[in-house]
Amino acid sequence: MNGHAATDIWKSLQEVRTKAPVVHSITNYVVMNSTANALLAVGASPVMAHAEEEVSDMVEIASALVINIGTLSREWVKSMFRAAEKAKSRSIPIILDPVGAGATPYRTGTAREIVRAFRPEIIRGNASEVMALSEDAARTKGVDSSETSHAAVSAARCIHEAYGSVVCISGETDYLIGRGPVAKVRNGHPMMTRVTGMGCAATALCGAFASVDGEYVRAAAHAMAVMGIAGEIAAEGADGPGTLQVRFLDALYRLTGEDIDARLKLEV
Amino acid sequence: MNGHAATDIWKSLQEVRTKAPVVHSITNYVVMNSTANALLAVGASPVMAHAEEEVSDMVEIASALVINIGTLSREWVKSMFRAAEKAKSRSIPIILDPVGAGATPYRTGTAREIVRAFRPEIIRGNASEVMALSEDAARTKGVDSSETSHAAVSAARCIHEAYGSVVCISGETDYLIGRGPVAKVRNGHPMMTRVTGMGCAATALCGAFASVDGEYVRAAAHAMAVMGIAGEIAAEGADGPGTLQVRFLDALYRLTGEDIDARLKLEV
Amino acid sequence: MNGHAATDIWKSLQEVRTKAPVVHSITNYVVMNSTANALLAVGASPVMAHAEEEVSDMVEIASALVINIGTLSREWVKSMFRAAEKAKSRSIPIILDPVGAGATPYRTGTAREIVRAFRPEIIRGNASEVMALSEDAARTKGVDSSETSHAAVSAARCIHEAYGSVVCISGETDYLIGRGPVAKVRNGHPMMTRVTGMGCAATALCGAFASVDGEYVRAAAHAMAVMGIAGEIAAEGADGPGTLQVRFLDALYRLTGEDIDARLKLEV
Repeated sequence: MNGHAATDIWKSLQEVRTKAPVVHSITNYVVMNSTANALLAVGASPVMAHAEEEVSDMVEIASALVINIGTLSREWVKSMFRAAEKAKSRSIPIILDPVGAGATPYRTGTAREIVRAFRPEIIRGNASEVMALSEDAARTKGVDSSETSHAAVSAARCIHEAYGSVVCISGETDYLIGRGPVAKVRNGHPMMTRVTGMGCAATALCGAFASVDGEYVRAAAHAMAVMGIAGEIAAEGADGPGTLQVRFLDALYRLTGEDIDARLKLEV
Repeated sequence: MNGHAATDIWKSLQEVRTKAPVVHSITNYVVMNSTANALLAVGASPVMAHAEEEVSDMVEIASALVINIGTLSREWVKSMFRAAEKAKSRSIPIILDPVGAGATPYRTGTAREIVRAFRPEIIRGNASEVMALSEDAARTKGVDSSETSHAAVSAARCIHEAYGSVVCISGETDYLIGRGPVAKVRNGHPMMTRVTGMGCAATALCGAFASVDGEYVRAAAHAMAVMGIAGEIAAEGADGPGTLQVRFLDALYRLTGEDIDARLKLEV
Repeated sequence: MNGHAATDIWKSLQEVRTKAPVVHSITNYVVMNSTANALLAVGASPVMAHAEEEVSDMVEIASALVINIGTLSREWVKSMFRAAEKAKSRSIPIILDPVGAGATPYRTGTAREIVRAFRPEIIRGNASEVMALSEDAARTKGVDSSETSHAAVSAARCIHEAYGSVVCISGETDYLIGRGPVAKVRNGHPMMTRVTGMGCAATALCGAFASVDGEYVRAAAHAMAVMGIAGEIAAEGADGPGTLQVRFLDALYRLTGEDIDARLKLEV
């Protein structure tokens, strides 16, 4: 299974490197630089533009649209909607990162509105963000970690059933919920949580892989596996999160089929 | 004295690492990423949000509020005020970084207004920024460097007396002005001035330490010592500011009680 | 020729390091941090401010104004205009980076408006951005790479003739178009294209060199040579774009007259 999956990932990665798909990201200020660098390192072509005057024209030349609500404001939400409308009309995949959903009503509300209005092809968040997207699940609180995963997977399934979105719940294990059984990716390294924007980079990579592979559970699983494997390689011998961040970009850039084959921990 | 202080710093640092306090930063675009990474490396939980619609809800879950005026605009100032009101009502510490106060009337005016309206628990700036906060001191110009320190300490004392704020003047020597004698921290490395956002990171660390220690002169001194010591470790063997920046995050992440004990240069 | 030019570059670089000119950048969110760090590493003093309320006061203390349209919005365009007016009135050089001109009408239009209204002392962009600035050239499409260079140089000459701006077309070879023959810089490394903001850093360095050298073709050529040489040094032994980015700042910081002499590939 893994041998086959590793070959698929390697093919998709090569396709990203060859086609250099334009990934338009409307993302938060904190991670713009690191997200652009992650996209460049994996071989994609990042574009960032948020003005209402131009988002629609920029989506015109993109192969995927990534919307990340990490630093929201009224103007930006307007642009996210305008961009998403254009993405829908062009049938390019929309990938949503509901950063901080659950932390404030503004975020939770905005994220839910985007989900309802545009049915993103892929949604990637952590367990509590995914639960916040689903009104029923959001009521579940104070559960322990294993129950959290369980509750988040249920919430993800509700979201998938209502909107058709593939939901990726990232964490120590990444869960991928779409049609069929839940896929799991167990790659990665705990030190990655000490670098800001690793989740946002994962979402952007979902955009890159979704632009070369219309089977979105698979595309998201591939993106998460590539993130995790590059993170593991980066963490080996890293003195801390500063070095990890630098080596992560190097690892993405140099990733080989052998690396993927040797390290992949994907379960379907 | 230092042995005792080193132990205190180590205890506070461990508390930050254990509690992972949420530090809400409304900061400038230039340093958002590096500030978030510094907070993560020291063990805190950074949150960045600036929309008027949500700042108040975000402060609700924070243990400290950091306001940095490095890239001001009308909308952001409104949000800073709203966030600070909430922080006051919840009695969590407000830490102000008056970046560039003195450079333009808009900055000077905004910084002074924040000081008057919210009496921040800690203000951290360089000598000229601190002088710009005090109307009398701002008239002092063209003095040489040692006089600058002298004039800034006087300005800081005026600010402390008027508003109760602890003032940290950072530079080759950091001065901490509150009740009692002036404390001095002499850690750090000159190459740190060639990396953008080191001062902003120091302010954010003041937020992290103030959230676990209500004695704000001490909390600010601890933050400055940790910054300076991590900077020294990072500078050793660094080929330039690029490497320094990476190794600084690693050093923050790995800092031990022994490092603090061996390097601390704190005078009270 | 090169021996002489290398000496000139080294002199200019030393002047930047000694004078630490204030370079005011109104630039895009993605590259603010890396641009500030590049300016600091080369010895300049970066300042970033965009509020309409203060841009004009900030230009007052600057030696060069860099305008980069990478993440445009209505408010920022207003501030760019206000800042440029002040720069004109103070006769400090304006350097324009028309990021993404040609990609959307909003960018193309804004970039052209800035060129017409302020006749920037230096414009730095890639071939397609430069062509987009010139209405005639913009019609040329689908040409191959060598024709692109040719068409871009023609467009640059039109722009120079109409507005007096020195135009720098960056790429594998950088072309500098002003009065007299086209100068060419062939320094740099392909891996630099996998790091976001390298072009933006080049534009910022044009600002630093233009603030110490009023002969703008020369100043821009020097900036491009310093960028390229630092990039080459950084790329040697770099494992990927992460390491490259870090070592690039180190290389800028440590660059010596011998490095320049040994590596310069400048043709006039």
